[in-house]
Amino acid sequence: MRYQLYYWPGLQGRGEFVRLALEDAGAGYDDVAREPGGMAKMMAAMKGEGVGEGRPPFAPPFLKAGKLVIAQVANILFYLGPRHGLAPKDDNARLWLNALQLTVTDFIQEVHGTHHPIATGLYYDDQKAAAKQYTAHFLKDRVPKFLGYFDRVIGESGGLYVLGRRISYTDLSLFQIVEGLRYAFPNAAKSFEKKVPRVVEVHGRVAERDNIKAYCASERRVPFNEDGIFRHYPELDS
Amino acid sequence: MRYQLYYWPGLQGRGEFVRLALEDAGAGYDDVAREPGGMAKMMAAMKGEGVGEGRPPFAPPFLKAGKLVIAQVANILFYLGPRHGLAPKDDNARLWLNALQLTVTDFIQEVHGTHHPIATGLYYDDQKAAAKQYTAHFLKDRVPKFLGYFDRVIGESGGLYVLGRRISYTDLSLFQIVEGLRYAFPNAAKSFEKKVPRVVEVHGRVAERDNIKAYCASERRVPFNEDGIFRHYPELDS
Repeated sequence: MRYQLYYWPGLQGRGEFVRLALEDAGAGYDDVAREPGGMAKMMAAMKGEGVGEGRPPFAPPFLKAGKLVIAQVANILFYLGPRHGLAPKDDNARLWLNALQLTVTDFIQEVHGTHHPIATGLYYDDQKAAAKQYTAHFLKDRVPKFLGYFDRVIGESGGLYVLGRRISYTDLSLFQIVEGLRYAFPNAAKSFEKKVPRVVEVHGRVAERDNIKAYCASERRVPFNEDGIFRHYPELDS
Repeated sequence: MRYQLYYWPGLQGRGEFVRLALEDAGAGYDDVAREPGGMAKMMAAMKGEGVGEGRPPFAPPFLKAGKLVIAQVANILFYLGPRHGLAPKDDNARLWLNALQLTVTDFIQEVHGTHHPIATGLYYDDQKAAAKQYTAHFLKDRVPKFLGYFDRVIGESGGLYVLGRRISYTDLSLFQIVEGLRYAFPNAAKSFEKKVPRVVEVHGRVAERDNIKAYCASERRVPFNEDGIFRHYPELDS
């Protein structure tokens, strides 16, 4: 089945966690809103026209899989995972993986707060002072807490990835988190990466995968920029 | 099966979304951390001792169901739903419901920001000015956006609840959202409720359910207070 991914063009954002899974799996997909006329299709879908009738998505990203329209990153990955070898088929293991992925979701929400602590509707420049305060706490307390947790989970799995020997979609998300933090906070990343060696190893293993390598070298990978979730504002870095 | 719910005692918080499902279903459960010695058990579980070995939860709430330990509210509800008549058994319908519940999760995260926009690790008093700015945007833009979405979903379902004629765990969460917003922002609630009549109707229908009525009248329902997610600080209300 060929999928249709709907996400804002011009940024990695939350859509990237889905792209990484589709790319690693070698799944065929259209990145709808990046194609001519695609934005209009995406906006229509959010009004419940054409795609998602009666079940309109709240926000991108959402994935069309045949007649099914699935919104919310963790939900999309929950669907894709067992179909593409990126999650176990066992129900209990899927719930455990979903809990981990929802912890990624929580973390990403906090990353977004580093540049938009007051309101998504305001520009960064209008909330710069709050962003500085927020990010100081984020780098000091939250990054070690979240990454430390994933580091422990990888350790307890006794394997190479969060679930042990086999890769899962959450490992792809951890790759993206390390990439994003390095882009946004290069100085801070240097010091906190020392404390989470297993997370850094997962990043390295994912980076070496053929499909991920090819994807990252392609034009399909939007470069990090200041429209995305991970933004490099030097004044926020430590 | 009797469940064990692990959540911070003394507040409703995120645990309440799970409690409402368990109570509505008439399921047997222990509210572990509210029992003598329970906090020690919960803290041990988070270190991966006793409960959740090898798969430690990141944070409460988490639910023990036999040998299974499930963390993250939406994940717990995804598990409980079809077992207790609070979700359909069909996979596609479950994904749709999960997308809705994850939108509840996103909203709750934003509610939390009304009193903690800068850092969870700081007191409210230390981020009061930012909280005021944040909450003004939250009430003006975010509440109408989220509640408006749910109102539309109920409308498009053509029924009494988000999925149509049958109640689901997300309807119980909408009940809690209305209760919480009324507690935290009584003035603002009066005006925005007028624009989302279907959400208010769902709230009313849930409030009339026997098990929910009995629960809300019992001591098991922790009263709203300023340790929870919905906090009443009059200076933040409109």
